[in-house]
Amino acid sequence: MKKKSLLIVCDGLGDRPVNGVTPLEAAYTPNMDKMASEGICGLMDTVLMGVRPGSDTAHLSLFGYNPFKYYAGRGPFEAAGVGLTLKKGDVAFRCNFASIKDDKIVDRRAGREEEGLSELSREINNIKIEGIELIYKKAAGHRAVLVLKGEDLSSNVSDTDPEGEAIGYNKSKPLDDSAQAAKTADILNEFTQKAIKLLAEHEVNKKRTQKNKLPANIILARGVGMKASIPSIKERLGISAACISATTLIKGVAREVGMDLIEVEGASGHVDSNIKAKMRATIKALKKYDFVFLHLKGTDEASHDGDFESKKNMLERIDVEVIGPILNDVKDCTIALTGDHSTPISIRQHSADPVPIVIVGDVREDKVKKFTERECAGGGLNRIRGLYLLNIMLDISDRVKLYGA
Amino acid sequence: MKKKSLLIVCDGLGDRPVNGVTPLEAAYTPNMDKMASEGICGLMDTVLMGVRPGSDTAHLSLFGYNPFKYYAGRGPFEAAGVGLTLKKGDVAFRCNFASIKDDKIVDRRAGREEEGLSELSREINNIKIEGIELIYKKAAGHRAVLVLKGEDLSSNVSDTDPEGEAIGYNKSKPLDDSAQAAKTADILNEFTQKAIKLLAEHEVNKKRTQKNKLPANIILARGVGMKASIPSIKERLGISAACISATTLIKGVAREVGMDLIEVEGASGHVDSNIKAKMRATIKALKKYDFVFLHLKGTDEASHDGDFESKKNMLERIDVEVIGPILNDVKDCTIALTGDHSTPISIRQHSADPVPIVIVGDVREDKVKKFTERECAGGGLNRIRGLYLLNIMLDISDRVKLYGA
Repeated sequence: MKKKSLLIVCDGLGDRPVNGVTPLEAAYTPNMDKMASEGICGLMDTVLMGVRPGSDTAHLSLFGYNPFKYYAGRGPFEAAGVGLTLKKGDVAFRCNFASIKDDKIVDRRAGREEEGLSELSREINNIKIEGIELIYKKAAGHRAVLVLKGEDLSSNVSDTDPEGEAIGYNKSKPLDDSAQAAKTADILNEFTQKAIKLLAEHEVNKKRTQKNKLPANIILARGVGMKASIPSIKERLGISAACISATTLIKGVAREVGMDLIEVEGASGHVDSNIKAKMRATIKALKKYDFVFLHLKGTDEASHDGDFESKKNMLERIDVEVIGPILNDVKDCTIALTGDHSTPISIRQHSADPVPIVIVGDVREDKVKKFTERECAGGGLNRIRGLYLLNIMLDISDRVKLYGA
Repeated sequence: MKKKSLLIVCDGLGDRPVNGVTPLEAAYTPNMDKMASEGICGLMDTVLMGVRPGSDTAHLSLFGYNPFKYYAGRGPFEAAGVGLTLKKGDVAFRCNFASIKDDKIVDRRAGREEEGLSELSREINNIKIEGIELIYKKAAGHRAVLVLKGEDLSSNVSDTDPEGEAIGYNKSKPLDDSAQAAKTADILNEFTQKAIKLLAEHEVNKKRTQKNKLPANIILARGVGMKASIPSIKERLGISAACISATTLIKGVAREVGMDLIEVEGASGHVDSNIKAKMRATIKALKKYDFVFLHLKGTDEASHDGDFESKKNMLERIDVEVIGPILNDVKDCTIALTGDHSTPISIRQHSADPVPIVIVGDVREDKVKKFTERECAGGGLNRIRGLYLLNIMLDISDRVKLYGA
C-alpha cells in the first residue's frame, strides 16, 4: 500500500559532546526516543563523509539532488525563497543593506534596522541598466536579493561585500577571461554606484539619521549564482511535495525543486518560533501531499550562538510540541527525523560529523532505544548518505519503481 | 580553534584471525587501547570495498586523491621517491639489477648484492637514445628507476621483467596500436640491449664474479607509468603537510601530492627500524606543519613473511615507542591511527579486509575500549572510505571550508 512520507529536519541537530554529553543526549525527549524504539536508526552524511554542508547543499542532497551536480551558488535559491522565478542563465546575488561612512563600511547590516527598507527596495528595483533587466526584492530584515536577467551573463565574478567592517566595499571583478564575466562585473559595479547615489540623499535615510539610526546607504552583494536547470521532484519521483519552513534559503531550495511552499503564521526560524502551528500545518499537509518536509531552524540558531541550554530546550520543545502530536495523529506514514548537518556547540559552526537519523514505518526495528548521535551509530541503518534518504523513505512508503526487471 | 592533524599508518595493519586471534588482538597495546577508549573507532576501506589496495593507491586515497582518477602506474611515484622531478608525459619504470646466464634469469635481484651498483647506475644514466632524454637512478638495494623524457611517449607498453626465474626476459611490446606505444616499447628494448652490452664486460661485474657474487648484468623494468597532473595538497586543502617514511614508494606518493619529506636517521622500513627516531621527528614536525603523516612499515614486512610473532612484536614496539610518547607529548591535535590495507598472515599478501581506525580529538567518543579489527567494527565511525579520511580529520581540526552556504 502506498503511504505518505514525512521528513522532519532539525537544522544543525548533530553535535559533539560537551563535558561528556551532547545537547540531544542531555535533552529529555521521550517522543524522539519512542521513534528510536519503534524505528530503524543510523548515522547520515548529508552531503559526503568529511564535507561540511551548507544549508543549501545539505537540503538539495536531502531532496535527492546531488549538490555536486546541481549546486551553482546560493543566490538563485535566495531569489526563489522570496518568490522570484528565474530563468536558466539569470544571475542572482544575496544582498545586504549596509551603512558606509567616509568610504568605510560601519555596519554590514545597517544596524539590522528595517525602517524604510521596503520603500528603498521598491525604488532600487527601478534602477535601469542598459541591456539587462534588473530585479531587486527585499527579504527578511536588512536582506534582499538582486537578480540580473539578460543575455551573456556569468556567475564567475567576485563579491562587493567585504565581509568585514571598518574597510571599504569591493569592486566586483571578473574571475575568468570571458566577455560574460567582464560584462556581469561591470553591471554589478554600475548597479552599486547607482544605488549609492539613490540612497545618499533619500528621505528614508534622512529620517533614519534624525532618529539616530544608521542610514542604509549602500548595497553589498555576495553569494552569486547562476540559475541552473533542475528537474522537479514530481518529474523525477512522481510525487507531490510540500515544504514547511520559515527560512528563505530553505524555502528557495524547496521551491527550486518544485515543492509547494506552505506559509505558517508565527513561524520565525528562531528559538521562539510557533512550532506548534508548523506541526498542525504538517498534519494538514499530509492529507494533500505525498511527501511533506518540515524544517525546524531553532536548533541551529542555538548552536551558532554556542548556547547548549537553548539547543537542549529547543529539542525538548520540538519533542513535546511537534514529535508527540505527530506520532499521535499521523497514521500510515513513513516518518524520518534527522538533521541537515551537525553544528557543534564547541565550534559554533557547521561540521562534517554525521547526523543521527531514525525512520519509523514498515522498517526493520533495531535495538536502539534513544535518539542520540551515539546510540544511532549502533542502529540498523549503519551510516547512510543524505542523497539516498528520500529514495529510502519512498521505498518504505512503496512509491519507488523497480530499477531493472 | 584550528588544530594540527597527525595520521599514523601502520603498513599492512589489518589481519584475519589465526587460531582465533589477529596479531593486533594478541598484542599488548595499552596505548592504542587508550586511544580507542578516548576516541571514535571504526573500519575503513582505504580504496573501496573489495578492492585490494597497493601501497601506492592506498596512500593516494588516504591523502584524499581518488586513485581511480589520479593513479597512472607505480613508476612515477618510485621516481619521485628517489627525488626525481617528472613533467607531465614523462614515462617511468621501476627497475631491478638482475643476473642472467645463457639467456635465463638466474636471480631477479642480482643476489640482493649492492656492490658496485652505484657506479653502474651512473654509467647507465649516460646511455644515449636518439630523440629522448633518459635518466637512470639507483634506489634502495638492487632497485633503480628509469625515466624517459620526450615527446610522444606512452605508458601502454609491456614490462621486460618476467617476474620469475629460470626463464628469459621479455621484449617490451606496445599494448595498443598507437605510434607512441610502439616508440616507447622500441626505446625500452634499445635501452635494455645497450645496458646488457655495457654491463657484460664491466669491471664491477668482473670483481663481483671474482668474489663469487652474482653479476648485475641485466636491467629488468616493470611498473610503467606516465606522470599525471596532480594538484598539490596545499592547493586543494590549504594545509602544509609533511611525510615521515622510509619507503621509497610512499615517499614518492607523498612528494607527488606536494608533501615535504622528512628524512630520519636509522629509519629503515624494516622490523628493526629506529621508530623512536621517527616518533621524535613526528613530534617536531607537528610544530611546523598543519598535517603530519607518519608511516611505519615493519608490520607489513612481518605480514609478507607470514610471521605472526614478528607482526605482534612490531605492534607492541609501535605501541610503546611511538603511540605512548605521542599521546603524552602532543596536544591540540587530531590524531588518527590506522593501516593502509590489511596484509593477513594467512595469505602473506594484501587483502581487501577493511582496516581498524581510531581518531582522537574533538570527537564523539564511543564505547570501544580496545584497538582491534573486531572491536573497531562496533565503533562510532561505522565504516568509512579512505578517500574521505583526511577531510574527516581536517573537519575535526577545524580546517575545512563550508561547502555551500
